This record gives sequence, C-alpha cells and structure tokens, in this order.
Amino acid sequence: MPRIDKYLYSEAERFEEELCELLRIPSVSADPQRREDVHRAADWVAEQLGRLGLATAVIATDGHPLVYAEPPPIDDAPTVLVYGHYDVQPPDPRDQWVSPPFEPTRRDGCLYARGATDDKGQMLTHIKSVEAWMQVEGRLPLNLKFIIEGEEEVGSEALEKYIVEHADRLACDCVVISDGGQFAPGRPAITYGLRGIAYYELRVKGPDRDLHSGSFGGSVTNPANTLAKLLAALVDDRGRIQVPGFYDDVVPLADREREEFAALDFDEQAYFEQIGVSGATGEADYTTLERRWARPTFDVCGLWSGYQGEGAKTILPATARAKFSFRLVPDQDPAKITAALQKKLDELCPPGIELELIDVHGAPGVLVPLDSPYVAAAAAAIEHGFGRPPVYTREGGSIPIVSVFHETLGADTLLLGWGQDDDNTHSPNEKFCLADFHRGIKASARLWKELSKVTR
Amino acid sequence: MPRIDKYLYSEAERFEEELCELLRIPSVSADPQRREDVHRAADWVAEQLGRLGLATAVIATDGHPLVYAEPPPIDDAPTVLVYGHYDVQPPDPRDQWVSPPFEPTRRDGCLYARGATDDKGQMLTHIKSVEAWMQVEGRLPLNLKFIIEGEEEVGSEALEKYIVEHADRLACDCVVISDGGQFAPGRPAITYGLRGIAYYELRVKGPDRDLHSGSFGGSVTNPANTLAKLLAALVDDRGRIQVPGFYDDVVPLADREREEFAALDFDEQAYFEQIGVSGATGEADYTTLERRWARPTFDVCGLWSGYQGEGAKTILPATARAKFSFRLVPDQDPAKITAALQKKLDELCPPGIELELIDVHGAPGVLVPLDSPYVAAAAAAIEHGFGRPPVYTREGGSIPIVSVFHETLGADTLLLGWGQDDDNTHSPNEKFCLADFHRGIKASARLWKELSKVTR
Repeated sequence: MPRIDKYLYSEAERFEEELCELLRIPSVSADPQRREDVHRAADWVAEQLGRLGLATAVIATDGHPLVYAEPPPIDDAPTVLVYGHYDVQPPDPRDQWVSPPFEPTRRDGCLYARGATDDKGQMLTHIKSVEAWMQVEGRLPLNLKFIIEGEEEVGSEALEKYIVEHADRLACDCVVISDGGQFAPGRPAITYGLRGIAYYELRVKGPDRDLHSGSFGGSVTNPANTLAKLLAALVDDRGRIQVPGFYDDVVPLADREREEFAALDFDEQAYFEQIGVSGATGEADYTTLERRWARPTFDVCGLWSGYQGEGAKTILPATARAKFSFRLVPDQDPAKITAALQKKLDELCPPGIELELIDVHGAPGVLVPLDSPYVAAAAAAIEHGFGRPPVYTREGGSIPIVSVFHETLGADTLLLGWGQDDDNTHSPNEKFCLADFHRGIKASARLWKELSKVTR
Repeated sequence: MPRIDKYLYSEAERFEEELCELLRIPSVSADPQRREDVHRAADWVAEQLGRLGLATAVIATDGHPLVYAEPPPIDDAPTVLVYGHYDVQPPDPRDQWVSPPFEPTRRDGCLYARGATDDKGQMLTHIKSVEAWMQVEGRLPLNLKFIIEGEEEVGSEALEKYIVEHADRLACDCVVISDGGQFAPGRPAITYGLRGIAYYELRVKGPDRDLHSGSFGGSVTNPANTLAKLLAALVDDRGRIQVPGFYDDVVPLADREREEFAALDFDEQAYFEQIGVSGATGEADYTTLERRWARPTFDVCGLWSGYQGEGAKTILPATARAKFSFRLVPDQDPAKITAALQKKLDELCPPGIELELIDVHGAPGVLVPLDSPYVAAAAAAIEHGFGRPPVYTREGGSIPIVSVFHETLGADTLLLGWGQDDDNTHSPNEKFCLADFHRGIKASARLWKELSKVTR
C-alpha cells in the first residue's frame, strides 16, 4: 500500500497537531465540573469522523455521550467494530507533572499529556488510518463501525446498556481495540486472552458481641480464627485451589502458548525488583508469566475483624470479614464456581459460626483462538506497521467491555496495544511515544486491508 | 464470734449509708476533669481507716494517690495485704441508667450506682470488718496492711511501681482481694487460678505497594493469603496449638479440679444463648468450663489488610496484620512461648514475604494451691458469712496486679468475689446486692480470725 503509507508520512505532522488539539480538552469523565469538556471531546471525535464522510452520530445517554460512525457499506466484506474512548483519568496529583496535563508537550520523542496513550492517542490511530483510505482510495476495503465512549474511566455503564439494546446496529465479525501496551519497547503484541473474575465478600459471624478473650476464649468459636481457617483451606501448599471441580473447565495452556511465553525476554528478577519482593510463590509447575496470564488464582483483597488500633485489646471479635477473588480463565463459569465455593464453605463451617457469602461480581475469561484468521490479519498488519512481527501475550486482568462484546455480539476482540509499560497510564506524566503513534496508524491502515481478505 | 456478728447486724444500716457516701463521689480515674473527685475518694477511704486507729497515709504518685494503712503490729501473727480500688469506670452511656450513676439508689434489695460492686462496695466490706474488730475487740487478731489504689480502671501504673519500690513495706503472707463475682447467686466462690497471656501483633509484608490482582495475581505471594495460612497453622482441628513445646509446662488439671468443675451447675445451653451462638468448638477432651478456666487458648483479636469498603477493589494488598493472643496457664512462660512462636513463624514464612512479630505484652498465669491453709481459712470464713461453703473456680482472664503480687512479694492471692455475674460491671446500671455486701463484711470479719490461726 505504498500510496497510503506515503499519505501517512506526508500528513504525520498534522496528525500530531490534531492529537494535541484533542489532548487539550480536559475530558475527565469522573469530574462533574468537566461535563462540558467531556461533551466537547465527543463533538471533536464526531467532527473528525464526519469530515471523512462517515455517517456519524453523537448519542446522548444517561451519562456521557457515545460517538457512533460508519462509512458507506461495502457488500460482501467483513464488518469490524472499532472501540475506543475519549474520556481520561483525573490528572491528580497535579504537582507531580513536569508539564501541565492538558498542555501536550513533546520531550524525547514522546508527547506528554493526560490521555496521550489512554486512549486518545491510540484511538486516533484508527481514525487517521481511515482518513488515509478515504483520501487516497476514496473508500475503505471493508465495513467499519466506530463506537467511541466517554465513560471508560468510570465504568462504561451507558455503553454496556447501548450494546445490549443495539446489538443489531453493532453486529460485526470482530472488534478492534487499541487501549493497551506492547510487550516491551519495539516488541508489539497481540493480547489474545484475558482472565475473568469471581469476586466475593465472606462474612463470618460468631457471638452477638465482642467477648473478653480471657473470660470466654477457648470455649467460643472465634470468627477471626475461623476466617483464617476457611481462607487457608481454599488453597493448598502447591497453589492449587481447593474448591471441588474448580479446574474442570480450565482450558489448559497449549504447547504453542507455553513455547511463545518462554521465548519472551521476561526478566523475572527485574519483575521481582519492580514490585519490591525477594521471591514469590504460585501454582506449582507453571512459570511466572503463565501464572499471571493463563492460570486461575485465589487472592484475598481485604480482611477486617476486631481490634486494629495501637497496643492490645483482648477481645474475641463478634465478626470477621474478607474480600477475595478468583481470577478465572476460559472456560471457567463464575456461577458454577460460586455454587461450588458456597458448598465447600458450608462443609467447613464449624459449630457456633454463621457464614454469608456475597457474590460481588463475576465475569468469564476470554480467549481468541490463536489460529483465527483475524489474528493472522492483525499479525501481518503489525509487522507492516512496526517492522517486526508481534508476540502473543495474555493479560491477567479483565476488560469487562470485551466480555460484553463477546457475550452480546458473539464477536472476538483483537487487543492491539500501541503503548508502553512506562507510559504512566493513570499516573502523572502520562505519555505516548510519537513513533508508536505513527506505527500504530500505519498498522491500522494495513489492518483494514488484511481483515478485508478474511473469508467470513 | 457472736459479738462481732452482733455489731455488724446493729451497724448494717450505717454501713450502707457510708457506702452511699463513697458512691456519690464520681471518682472516674480516666476522666481528667474528675481529678479532684478521685482525690476526694482517696481522702474518704483514708479517713475511714484513720478513724479506726490505723496508721494511714495518702501517698501521692505520678497519677492518682494510693491509700496505705496498717493497724498496730501483732507479734507472731500472719500478715495479710488487703487490696482494693476506689476509682470507677466512666458512667457512659449515661442515658441508659435507670437512676443517675452517682446517686446511689436502692431497688429490689440492690444498690445501683457506678462503683457499687466494682470495687467500692466490695472494698468497703474489708474496712467495715476491721471496724467491727476494733470496736468490739479493740484490736485485730493478725497483721493487716491495706493498699487501696485509684488507677485500677486505667492500668495501675503507679501501684505497680510502688509495689516494686516498696516491697518490704508491703511484705505479707497472703493477699486478699474482693473485686469479682460469685459463681452464681448464693454460690460464693474462691477463685484460685487465673490465666496468663501472651499478646502479639503479626505484620506480614509483601510487595512494596498494593498490586492489581489481575495483572499480578498468581505470581506474587499475597500477604493476606499468607496471614490466613500462618494463623490457621497455629492451631489444629482438635483445638491444639501447634507451637512446638507449647504444652510442655502446662500444669494439667487435677482430678479434684475436674470433679469440682463438673459438679458446678453450669448450664452450657444457657451460656451459649447468653452470647448468641448455637454451639462452639474448643480443645478436644475438655469441657466448656475447663476450656475457659484452665486450658491455654489461641484467639485472633484483630485482623486488617487491603480493602475494607463497599463493593470490589481488585488488589493484592501490600501488607496484612493480625493481633492475637495465647491465654496461658501455669506454668507456661510467656518468653519461652514467644521464642517458640517466632521460630515456628519463621519456618512457615514463604518466599516473597517478610514477617515481623511484635511481643505486645505477656504475663504468666497464677494458681493458688487448693490445699493451701489460706484457702481453707477463706473457705471457713465464706461458709460463716454466706451460710454455704464456697465452690472453687478459676478465671479465664488475667488480673495483672495478682501477678505482680506473686512475682514481687512472693505472696498468693485469695480472690474472694462478693459480686454477681449480672452486676453490670463497666456497664450502665451497675449494682451490688445489699445482702452480698453484708455477707461479705461478715465473711471478711471471720476471715481475719481464720487467717490468724494459720501457722506460717
């Protein structure tokens, strides 16, 4: 596509200027005082898309507006939904910014501003690639639908509702999202798996009030002792979760995946140093990357009971509570896990204790088949844009909207992150490497071509 | 002692009036605004003792004053130290009192006021019994020393210092304290054993900050998971504490003790109902009373880690902490227990975790030999005063000053509680049964006679 690439090269400076324009709009979705700015950012995105000849709508919601756009239809071509967000995190703490968060500033080949990488810069790569196609070819090689939201940083409530209510309008063959990072500088990645989650609060109730641990201790089942016993019983010394049937539906790591992960230049010692530990434990027989990306976990997220102040208070507490989660992997079902957990806890519950398990929320993991033609298309596009084939990674966290796309539209998502680990996402001095911005646009332009060739 | 008993009978009403006088002084030791009242209560006690011909001193300290008094010496007679306290707990919450806390009020044969049972009423029984001896016989049959403090409710700091610094002055054969309860109404008791304590804070440190439980979970040792594992590992499913050597120095329950406890009309179901549980667990092969009074325990008193708010926060916490205690029984040594615990925890500590065990405080348990002649003397006195022989009980809590008397003076303590379980000690509507007040005085008067006969 030499003509398109040439266009991108010649317009590069303007693209940066336009990104700066968008970055100057302080579209902080969490801040009610920024409501007008958030709307202004939606309008800016809609104006960009409308200018290219796409049918564009700014859709009002109970929260911040959605921007929807689609070019004229192309018969017999695949349909791709592009998702992104124009809202940003609050800039606090402001005094730690080297340059002001809403005055984009170039330093060392990067653009520093709130939203530079998350997600204004990455989202714009897909708009600019469409511009190139429209300007050079007069049309796109496939059907695109843009859905750009303004509430990603505050929970995506309006979008989730819209997807469910307008599944037909959003119907597509696959979803493309650039809102993440490469594996390392110069190591672009396709993230093909996300873990799910099952998050709980466990309430352990004993006597109807705190008791004197001298007068009563030994003759009353202690809720805090019990909580420790229950939590400890949920995982064994080899890091295996002790809920019957827990692993039944786990899709095991394929040999190819284990080889790919092992081939990544992951420095375990550097990782431990980065988080300030001298070593780690985890599920036996798995590497650190496998444990992070592709194996289910059990983590206590919070604990509280009895006395937490200075010195000694000699009580046997009336209650003890924990928040904890299992990270799930495909094809584990959160509802099935909850039922098995409840049964296990009931069996372990000692006399004198009442248990209440609260199912706070759950979401399944997602996994895009590595042999999918969409993945192959994305790999070719990335190699074109970045000069290097991508590595294949998974991510330990969840991206709820990806689960919604999967469940509601039946579509897999290509997670093509153009950012870097050190982009300071959600922190002061957020940045986006300008080389990655332009490589992302180039990869995106090629992506439309590659995806257009996929037989549906 | 018919003449003394007759005197007590004839003066009963005045004794009650004098108790009311003392109860009207709001000697709340914790309240800096009540400092003058606290001093006034000390002066009132000193005046009572001085009026009987005892050499009396109000001893200034860094805190509230001590009252010391002794009658003229009696050669070749045992020496008994009487301990009590004239300070009281704060009356809050005031709106729950039926009659005002510092306006003593008679209802149903009881006197309602803050301090009625704890400890003004009980302490006064020993002063009034001395009055009877002095008035009727002109002298006591043995050597007495009174030490009455004003900081029992706030830690007894000044008294502990005084005991250590003036051990010679306080030297005695045994100590008498009435600052507790009978086993049940009409079932007076001698409490011959107290548990000790070893209280700790355990700090579990993992990564240098809270981590995202998705991105990191599974590959980092979780401090909250670890805390649960460590605490759970300290006790097995039979309620046996899993610290090596923990039971080595435990004085086992004697057959006589187990028989005495079993013979007490202890209603386990009523006990469970009272604390709002449907059952309990505890050390296997021991009854509820044995577990409360005579066996060591492990109780978590507090837990805290990570997120304790509403909903979900998906973190792997940087730290987790617990407060916990072992209740000890004779002859367990807190220092030895601490060393064994530290070793056990170090062995259990997984990679990626740093542990810090803080020894908050420790005190050994105490046990007065049941075949002691002092116990026999107290039993005879109680039978005289209450018309019924005492039962022999132990107490699950600690009374630190008893350990101090034991360690510093080498003296055993006779714990002769005249109160009842439902006296609302430390709560609104504190009361003291007037019949118990008078029985206590009668038993006390007889006690001096019985103790005078003990061969030293």
